[in-house]
Amino acid sequence: MRVQGVDYRTITLAPDGWSVSVIDQTQLPFEFVLCRLQTVADAAAAICSMVVRGAPLIGVTAAYGVALAMRADPSDASLRHALGLLAGTRPTAINLRWSLARMDGVLQATRVQARAERAYVEALAIADEDVAACAAIGRYGEAMLRGLAADRAGQPLRVLTHCNAGWLACVDWGTALAPVYAAHDAGVPLHVYVDETRPRNQGAALTAFELGAHGVPYTVIADNAGGHLMQQGEIDLCLVGSDRVTPNGDVVNKIGTYLKALAAHDNGVPFYAALPGSTIDWSFAGDPAGIPIEQRAARELTHVRGRSGDGCLLEVEVVAANSPVANPAFDVTPSRLVTALITERGIAPATREGLCTLYPERAGSTGQIDEPTGA
Amino acid sequence: MRVQGVDYRTITLAPDGWSVSVIDQTQLPFEFVLCRLQTVADAAAAICSMVVRGAPLIGVTAAYGVALAMRADPSDASLRHALGLLAGTRPTAINLRWSLARMDGVLQATRVQARAERAYVEALAIADEDVAACAAIGRYGEAMLRGLAADRAGQPLRVLTHCNAGWLACVDWGTALAPVYAAHDAGVPLHVYVDETRPRNQGAALTAFELGAHGVPYTVIADNAGGHLMQQGEIDLCLVGSDRVTPNGDVVNKIGTYLKALAAHDNGVPFYAALPGSTIDWSFAGDPAGIPIEQRAARELTHVRGRSGDGCLLEVEVVAANSPVANPAFDVTPSRLVTALITERGIAPATREGLCTLYPERAGSTGQIDEPTGA
Repeated sequence: MRVQGVDYRTITLAPDGWSVSVIDQTQLPFEFVLCRLQTVADAAAAICSMVVRGAPLIGVTAAYGVALAMRADPSDASLRHALGLLAGTRPTAINLRWSLARMDGVLQATRVQARAERAYVEALAIADEDVAACAAIGRYGEAMLRGLAADRAGQPLRVLTHCNAGWLACVDWGTALAPVYAAHDAGVPLHVYVDETRPRNQGAALTAFELGAHGVPYTVIADNAGGHLMQQGEIDLCLVGSDRVTPNGDVVNKIGTYLKALAAHDNGVPFYAALPGSTIDWSFAGDPAGIPIEQRAARELTHVRGRSGDGCLLEVEVVAANSPVANPAFDVTPSRLVTALITERGIAPATREGLCTLYPERAGSTGQIDEPTGA
Repeated sequence: MRVQGVDYRTITLAPDGWSVSVIDQTQLPFEFVLCRLQTVADAAAAICSMVVRGAPLIGVTAAYGVALAMRADPSDASLRHALGLLAGTRPTAINLRWSLARMDGVLQATRVQARAERAYVEALAIADEDVAACAAIGRYGEAMLRGLAADRAGQPLRVLTHCNAGWLACVDWGTALAPVYAAHDAGVPLHVYVDETRPRNQGAALTAFELGAHGVPYTVIADNAGGHLMQQGEIDLCLVGSDRVTPNGDVVNKIGTYLKALAAHDNGVPFYAALPGSTIDWSFAGDPAGIPIEQRAARELTHVRGRSGDGCLLEVEVVAANSPVANPAFDVTPSRLVTALITERGIAPATREGLCTLYPERAGSTGQIDEPTGA
């Protein structure tokens, strides 16, 4: 992705060759600020505070967090501490657990003196694989969008998206937005309706920033408006990312996704989720209502960060004083509301059969995967 | 309703006996400020700018606006001008048209010299009838809530509401909140989940203010969160107001209501709308998709008003710069998603038969009512 003419990944090594550079997403869309992570504690704090967010990017940041820990101290105790610290940062996105399990497996099999170097190699591999996966999602999704656009007789294909599942949520390209960028670049006319995505406004702040920078036409709407637009025939498809997909195709994503899926179903609008394989929780068995849903701070809802008339960035309180607040961060969209899943291996129905066709090596999953030892 | 120990109606005559005093709802929850309307233009501006809002209160304010016009000039031309000006303020809430048609009918039948006095009498009658209607809605709704609470074994009955349909939206009591206040005062344990209601935050600003002042336990949530709470079994019923109800029981209400009705239906949660008879658009025939939905200013979404850390009230920009915005203010919840309608005449299914049982005098409605001559 290019920002003001410069190619960016959301996470890279800093010029010093060992510390980790990320974009501080809490400052967007107002300021584009890079932030340097020097310790595993820095990496954990960046994930907790949503300096970095988005399931794929959280996974890669955690991998680099382990590398920072190994550079400081490659012992078993240090590894266990790093894995535990990072696993505790956020509960819902499965890419975090997947990434930590992978780092754990690789580093356990590496002698202590070689662990730091090996950890950086593996973190970069995870990042590179995410870029490749998102690029592939973009190619498969582009073909799907092109097919839907054929029914629009040259009028823009109208896509509703929720939260930010663009390159800011990944290392590059994005999940839900990768097909949008690919189709736009290939000349398919598109218009993206961007849910504001309260309480943290990832849509209005991040997706609008991304789409504007790329030149994709878009319109920001309140989260409340999507159902009405679908009733009015103004939306051709919904396309979202995911933080965790169950083997049965249920989609965990930013709070409010379920409401849009209900409206899509009620209006005959197709509803797609785009995700890399690392987002599939093959270990999950049971009732999706049991998936841990992060409860975040009340202040995310009671206060809004923005730019005042004189250009200052500040927070204002927007809720009646002393109001109790609940702030669940994700919900579960049942697979029955999902038209299909777009992955790096192709597009499949949101069913166990559909996913196993794409990931046949997982067809025998028993509901258990390697857990990071420190988790 | 009492605020800081003082009994209030949302709209009254000022101490001068002729100008009209309203609460400036754009200042809530931060400041409780009264605002004086002295001309029909003041009344129209107060409706447009949402100094007053809520379908019943809009209707009463428009009636007083006509009275202010008649006091200044009771001629036919002045009446036509006032009716046209006020009818053009907001397109969706039907109470506005209903109130203006009623004022028109009464004043056309009144000799010019007596019109000013007659207009004030009629406006007060409309206000008094609204108070009586809301009180009756409260009684019927209380009985309904008491019945639902019986299944909760002493645990609070958990009500989800959207926007503000409390006393601030009416003259007193409210529509959706009248049953809540009545039940709470009668000792029925309740807990209200309050949707923030973007983009104008009527839930977080007004409903939270009202419930807090009355002592009803509540929790503010993002608009995105209600579906998840219903999936988790945390909501026992939804209870909203309405800006217009069709004779078939379709409910026009604040944007986002439809999404909550979908989630209620998907989770077996009953969904009620509470409204006075003046909210029923007996003239409506045809596809509810044809009901005029107000498109409001982009700035309502791009900017948020709040209180900064040093106590100043100010607006901050929250959307990426130069973003196009769409801001529809209402949506239509199809009657198939509505469990029942709560009115001042009782509770009925959201069907033509149900409404005609309560309003038998309208059973022969042909789809035409008196229109204000100036509209």
